[in-house]
Amino acid sequence: MLRRGFQAAARLGYHRVLPGGRCILPRLNPASAFGSSTDSLVSRFCPEKTDFKDYALPNASWCPDMLSLYKEFMEKTKSSGWVKLPSFKSNREHIQGLKLPSGLAVPSDKRDWRSLTRCIQVEGQGYEYVIFFHPSEKKSVCLFQPGPYLEGPPGLAHGGALAAMMDETFSKTAYLTGEGLLTLSLNIRFKNLIPVGSLVVLNVEVEKIEDQKIYISCIAQNRDQQMVYAKSSAVFLQLQLEEESSQQ
Amino acid sequence: MLRRGFQAAARLGYHRVLPGGRCILPRLNPASAFGSSTDSLVSRFCPEKTDFKDYALPNASWCPDMLSLYKEFMEKTKSSGWVKLPSFKSNREHIQGLKLPSGLAVPSDKRDWRSLTRCIQVEGQGYEYVIFFHPSEKKSVCLFQPGPYLEGPPGLAHGGALAAMMDETFSKTAYLTGEGLLTLSLNIRFKNLIPVGSLVVLNVEVEKIEDQKIYISCIAQNRDQQMVYAKSSAVFLQLQLEEESSQQ
Repeated sequence: MLRRGFQAAARLGYHRVLPGGRCILPRLNPASAFGSSTDSLVSRFCPEKTDFKDYALPNASWCPDMLSLYKEFMEKTKSSGWVKLPSFKSNREHIQGLKLPSGLAVPSDKRDWRSLTRCIQVEGQGYEYVIFFHPSEKKSVCLFQPGPYLEGPPGLAHGGALAAMMDETFSKTAYLTGEGLLTLSLNIRFKNLIPVGSLVVLNVEVEKIEDQKIYISCIAQNRDQQMVYAKSSAVFLQLQLEEESSQQ
Repeated sequence: MLRRGFQAAARLGYHRVLPGGRCILPRLNPASAFGSSTDSLVSRFCPEKTDFKDYALPNASWCPDMLSLYKEFMEKTKSSGWVKLPSFKSNREHIQGLKLPSGLAVPSDKRDWRSLTRCIQVEGQGYEYVIFFHPSEKKSVCLFQPGPYLEGPPGLAHGGALAAMMDETFSKTAYLTGEGLLTLSLNIRFKNLIPVGSLVVLNVEVEKIEDQKIYISCIAQNRDQQMVYAKSSAVFLQLQLEEESSQQ
């Protein structure tokens, strides 16, 4: 029983909470799932006014390539259907007014919760990035500059840092495209090493949505696309977030 | 040409440094590669005396399960061939006196370089972990407790944090087993969500060493092995680190 995973949860609608609360799998509600349009998801995700700090904005640590490409994409948000995604400190700030499916209780204590890719708040030391999303084309571009706190081999970005950045970009894209919420699998082929401080451009595309799963792929390159750093693919499970008010 | 990756480097012995130094692939030296024994690698990796702080030691944030399992493994270091690996702030501290292969220049500036999994130095907030390695059995166990700075879905560890921890444990195991230095591929299947603050036990095994590549696998579970969090596999490229003195 305990070895059944997300797939089993999706297929069978299981709801499982172990004694001690250590295993948590969501209950699916097929009648209500996947009802939100991409437009409404994006509108909710990108509030016009918010008190939360947006970390996906240029700062003095950004290299010239990152800054100029950011400006290019900001121009595209005016005419080409691209949307710049805000990035708050914790994902719980992104889902204000929503709740996770039954069984995925959100701790409400006062710990300093931070999303993995916003764990380091000193400018330029950790994950500097911004994600642009194109709703109708179901694709994203992430501009990523790894800092010296993300080192693997000396002077080079840790493979796990790129894996984390890919998973984060995948998850935002999968959620906004079709309520893809949980990573089922992540496969990465590393091609070239990334010197710390370089710009990495992640091009992410949704390949298909099938059987409550979103299949998504990524190619990470330098700006002029002459250097492939890595290629990856992932599968996400669709799970609808519920309105708080309808559950209380 | 530029799309050739690590595999090509391994197979053909390419040495590539792009103008601007952005693409760096190592030159392989088949005559000298893979000459270090596991014992000598482990001895060098675990110095009896060092000025570097070892972060892989218990602190007040460790949950009781993590602390008691740590003590169990420390007992096994006395009689069962297990070795507790120290964990310094940066991998450059682990390779003191060694240098990366030609083409992988190590920046020597004074930035605060940190290994990804030691990027957060506040106890309990980030990656709390310790790795035990068994040289003759070519396997490792990593005790990992993700903190609230590694959040993905609210209250739950980010998939990228587990990916990073797997890659880090893989890389140490691959290096000490046979000079496996660079991740070529990483494949993860996520099975269950990990509440922040839980103990995750990563059991890592080298499957085979073939054609200058190390094939390695991992299963991440809770302490009693009743809950599988994820399974993964990876391939590492073997690259020998050179003695500084022989190159200068």
